[in-house]
Amino acid sequence: MTADPRSSEQRKADTLARLQDDVDLWVASASADGDAYLVPLSYYWDGSTLTVATPRATRTARNLIRAGRARVALGPTRDVVIVDGPVEALAIGTDVELEDAHARATGFDPRTLAGEYVYLRITPHTIQAWREANEIEGRVVMRDGAWT
Amino acid sequence: MTADPRSSEQRKADTLARLQDDVDLWVASASADGDAYLVPLSYYWDGSTLTVATPRATRTARNLIRAGRARVALGPTRDVVIVDGPVEALAIGTDVELEDAHARATGFDPRTLAGEYVYLRITPHTIQAWREANEIEGRVVMRDGAWT
Repeated sequence: MTADPRSSEQRKADTLARLQDDVDLWVASASADGDAYLVPLSYYWDGSTLTVATPRATRTARNLIRAGRARVALGPTRDVVIVDGPVEALAIGTDVELEDAHARATGFDPRTLAGEYVYLRITPHTIQAWREANEIEGRVVMRDGAWT
Repeated sequence: MTADPRSSEQRKADTLARLQDDVDLWVASASADGDAYLVPLSYYWDGSTLTVATPRATRTARNLIRAGRARVALGPTRDVVIVDGPVEALAIGTDVELEDAHARATGFDPRTLAGEYVYLRITPHTIQAWREANEIEGRVVMRDGAWT
């Protein structure tokens, strides 16, 4: 049995709850010559942006800084939230309040680790949310940065 | 409390069980000019390869056929299996046995749908499996197509 499709309002509420409550997401990225990459990273949600941290030398950091945008996914594959948006790279020390909040949310503090980490802040531009095939229609819950 | 890291044998067993029992995975792909993409797809595991099906016109199909390889992820972000390997594109009608098995495993049969679907068969070359940070070491459970 598949549940009835959720209303647009319910999807927005569920999406916000997931962004608030989850800890990890999947980050897709690509090199300039089209080599795809995918890793899970912990994130911090401040109510309007997602922040992850990873060593500046990793493929994910290099790819996202090059591209200037990211596509990330949260949730199990039958309750997905997919976020597309621009990425801002913030060196350690740029925003101490954000760095403190990231450490609390993720349980790790890149400022204490060897190696140069970079914070990558993603501002959702498009968000899709669906569970089963009957929710494919109406899956865009944010378009051009505005909730639909 | 984080559990002790699993043995290499246990990780292989858990990985095979997940490949057998799960239904969906995350597929990362990229265009030739480095635009990353990410979608969940249902798959069929035949014991040594993963097969997904998607319309030939989708970004995922076009990206994977161009690249000739894929990076896909299974499981929740704290119990991940990440598979890298070459991709073979199979037009409908190429392998009826595989197509029947795919329909049984995924619950949908692209042969019955409008639009031209393509099967994409991924042969694992590298597999990584880890739960928490203490399993990052030893996460490569398959290298060059051989279990480690």
